[in-house]
Amino acid sequence: MAIAVEQFFLDPAHRGTLQRQLQEIVTGAILAGRFRPGDRMPSSRGLARHLGISRITVTLAYTELVANDYLSSRGRSGYFVSESAPRPPSFPTQTPSESRVDWSRVLGQRFPPATILTRPEDWRRYRYPFIYGQADARLFDHQNWRKCALQALGARDFAAMTEDSYGRDDPHLIEQIIRNILPRRGIVATPAEVLVTMGAQNALWMLAQVLLTQRRTAAMEFPCYPALREILRQARCNTLEVAVDGHGLPPDDVPPTTDVVFVTPSHHCPTSATMPVARRRELLARAEQDDFLIVEDDYEFELAFTASPSPALKSLDRGGRVAYIGSFAKSLFPGLRLGYIVAPEPLIRELRTLRSLLVRHVPGHMQRATAYFLAQGHYDAQVHKMARAYRERRAVAEVSIQSNGLSIAGASSFGGSSFWMEAPPGIQSAALAERLRQRQVLIEPAAAFFGDGRDPGTHYRLAYSSISVADIPEGIRRVAEECAAMARGAA
Amino acid sequence: MAIAVEQFFLDPAHRGTLQRQLQEIVTGAILAGRFRPGDRMPSSRGLARHLGISRITVTLAYTELVANDYLSSRGRSGYFVSESAPRPPSFPTQTPSESRVDWSRVLGQRFPPATILTRPEDWRRYRYPFIYGQADARLFDHQNWRKCALQALGARDFAAMTEDSYGRDDPHLIEQIIRNILPRRGIVATPAEVLVTMGAQNALWMLAQVLLTQRRTAAMEFPCYPALREILRQARCNTLEVAVDGHGLPPDDVPPTTDVVFVTPSHHCPTSATMPVARRRELLARAEQDDFLIVEDDYEFELAFTASPSPALKSLDRGGRVAYIGSFAKSLFPGLRLGYIVAPEPLIRELRTLRSLLVRHVPGHMQRATAYFLAQGHYDAQVHKMARAYRERRAVAEVSIQSNGLSIAGASSFGGSSFWMEAPPGIQSAALAERLRQRQVLIEPAAAFFGDGRDPGTHYRLAYSSISVADIPEGIRRVAEECAAMARGAA
Repeated sequence: MAIAVEQFFLDPAHRGTLQRQLQEIVTGAILAGRFRPGDRMPSSRGLARHLGISRITVTLAYTELVANDYLSSRGRSGYFVSESAPRPPSFPTQTPSESRVDWSRVLGQRFPPATILTRPEDWRRYRYPFIYGQADARLFDHQNWRKCALQALGARDFAAMTEDSYGRDDPHLIEQIIRNILPRRGIVATPAEVLVTMGAQNALWMLAQVLLTQRRTAAMEFPCYPALREILRQARCNTLEVAVDGHGLPPDDVPPTTDVVFVTPSHHCPTSATMPVARRRELLARAEQDDFLIVEDDYEFELAFTASPSPALKSLDRGGRVAYIGSFAKSLFPGLRLGYIVAPEPLIRELRTLRSLLVRHVPGHMQRATAYFLAQGHYDAQVHKMARAYRERRAVAEVSIQSNGLSIAGASSFGGSSFWMEAPPGIQSAALAERLRQRQVLIEPAAAFFGDGRDPGTHYRLAYSSISVADIPEGIRRVAEECAAMARGAA
Repeated sequence: MAIAVEQFFLDPAHRGTLQRQLQEIVTGAILAGRFRPGDRMPSSRGLARHLGISRITVTLAYTELVANDYLSSRGRSGYFVSESAPRPPSFPTQTPSESRVDWSRVLGQRFPPATILTRPEDWRRYRYPFIYGQADARLFDHQNWRKCALQALGARDFAAMTEDSYGRDDPHLIEQIIRNILPRRGIVATPAEVLVTMGAQNALWMLAQVLLTQRRTAAMEFPCYPALREILRQARCNTLEVAVDGHGLPPDDVPPTTDVVFVTPSHHCPTSATMPVARRRELLARAEQDDFLIVEDDYEFELAFTASPSPALKSLDRGGRVAYIGSFAKSLFPGLRLGYIVAPEPLIRELRTLRSLLVRHVPGHMQRATAYFLAQGHYDAQVHKMARAYRERRAVAEVSIQSNGLSIAGASSFGGSSFWMEAPPGIQSAALAERLRQRQVLIEPAAAFFGDGRDPGTHYRLAYSSISVADIPEGIRRVAEECAAMARGAA
């Protein structure tokens, strides 16, 4: 790294010569790890001009630092931090010791860390990662994504990439969502009914902010997506939980006092249950009757390979009561942070104003690159490739699960990327996961989906979106083996 | 566009033959504008398989649609929407008419559109755009940005780009911020004291959420950045305004009941006043004495060219009371939506949890591309190039302003990208802007900075970040000319 002159400040209160002060700045920065071996120092001329001091002072300081082996001189190339300069200590820098701020009082722990899924940061190093929701480098069409991203970096798209667009979305992306994506879900929408978001979670968050207050009631599925539980807690509304069955949320169990119900009809998170069309119509009828709104999280709809997916709840919504959430996290990749909401215009208008306060807009380049990827047909090819691979992985996993005597507690009727599993009686899935981790196998214990202390402790999620088909049988064999070992230990 | 088979759904309730239904789907989509002239239809085989009907039914439907000129056949290339197909009506699609949802009650206008700056969407078409805060294609190092973005699209960075990283930031970007950027502001920080945000506004929003409640009091500058006023209104805290003078916020005027004060010491937004170091120390002493926190928005610090900037308030903060906000909106471009907060660890931890609920994390590719741009020295070259150009533009503008008899009400003592102007007595800046717009000149009337109804109506902002140096004299001449014409009209 070339060290910029802007990193140097003179302190008027310093007691000592300018040369001494300069040396202290450099040694201090090296000892703090800010300047590192190989970094290039500013030229003596440039630094002298920046600080308004004589060049000879800088040269003398540099010469002294070379003598002490903090710097090395490479002739005409200039001065560099010496490869043998002292290394910074490995303990972290202390925060100011004079601090009198009582952070526990100031913050009041309003945003405590939520219960999250157990997933090691270095999951890619595990041989049998049955983990959910990350992109698979073997399946992602990296080459065409790069092509589209590069196209969106071009001069023609300079304004789309660089501008502060305030509340506006990229019209090209909106067009692709409306013409190319939504019709697959049976949804017809105008541009004023669509808002681009920073992924599905951001969509849930904004909808909760706009639709809920301390005096309103939200109904959510039980078990449910852990981040939704947190989001509703932050919205400080009343919350009710409705237990799902094998067909998702039972409409008759939604209490009449509900203002907004959050559902995942395509396949319930985490049990994967798909809500039949008859039940969707019932839910819409109940919404009319009891005057509540519905937030439909249609995550993973693209991964329909065992059967055509039902049209979205939103496509049946004649009363304008459904806010629909879609996302590119699964079909493209989660690090993109790109999703969208389809809802009646007055709601979209309000959400747009909230978003403009929150993040202003979604980064222009991400929107335009995605629009190209969709418009050029790569999205279709991508989704088909994933569906083919997932179908194969799922079939192989099903055989292994059965032949190893493990139990599926739930699976989507049209595809998806995971099984909802139940461990044998008496076996806790958290302990199982811990033992498996020692054997290169990652599974996801289900505690987070149930919320505080209500986890029966026996469920886990087994996803096949990041594991190769060849490794699935051995991975599942190890799951069964550890289950058996635990059962023996308990007996 | 190739139309995907997923866009086709059969309706079990349809009364008519399958062929008839298929024709209606196609004509309906064409008339609604979803299928457009030149779009390629799915193959008859693919569509038949998708719908589970016979291929001959699809072929018959297509043949009929060709006969009616909705489709055209190009032999072996397949079927396309005909170039002479009926066009959709130009009036917008109606929202469902049965809707009984009372949106005014549901939404309660909690996020009403804020007063914003007047800036036409097509500002790039104006010859004399004295507008603020957009990237200038003549100055931005597009080529090296593209190189870095392309590098971050590579296979080596696949995980960094695609992963759902939950609460984590890109360690490469954090390292660059800590080693390369913060030292220029005199700030020393550990990785645990830095959080990447979706730009400076997102940083302000999150800090308001975490630090303020209905029982707490925020002090802001008057006039101030309009989005901050909205953000504090949404936080529902008590707010106090402190009028700035020629040296920014006077510390003695901060009421002792304040919990958090929001300041722009490098140069006040919008008057550009720079807070002297002595006043910064006073403000920190007041914060200790009255036990309040300080949010320092250090926007545009990079654009220091008339003098070296003072170190940030944060660099003087021994008591751990300052949350510092930086952004790449001005040095790179606003559409990037990338900024950062530097603050004590307990506060960063809380902000990180909030961010993970809100957007999860900032898109990985944007973080990595920026890290490369910084690490390879392009950021320095970019900032120097902008500073040189701005210095020249500012000098030319100053001469023009003076020779045309216009009045500067405020300017940063070290650079920046705009002048804070005052119109001649009796002239309203909003009316002036409107007249100038007819003459290809865009200026920014200042109403939004003052909040509802308290605008003296005479100030405006004249930015030189998006206008070429050659056009500045004529643009300013026109401002003066319209002022004179308005004065004559009033007399």
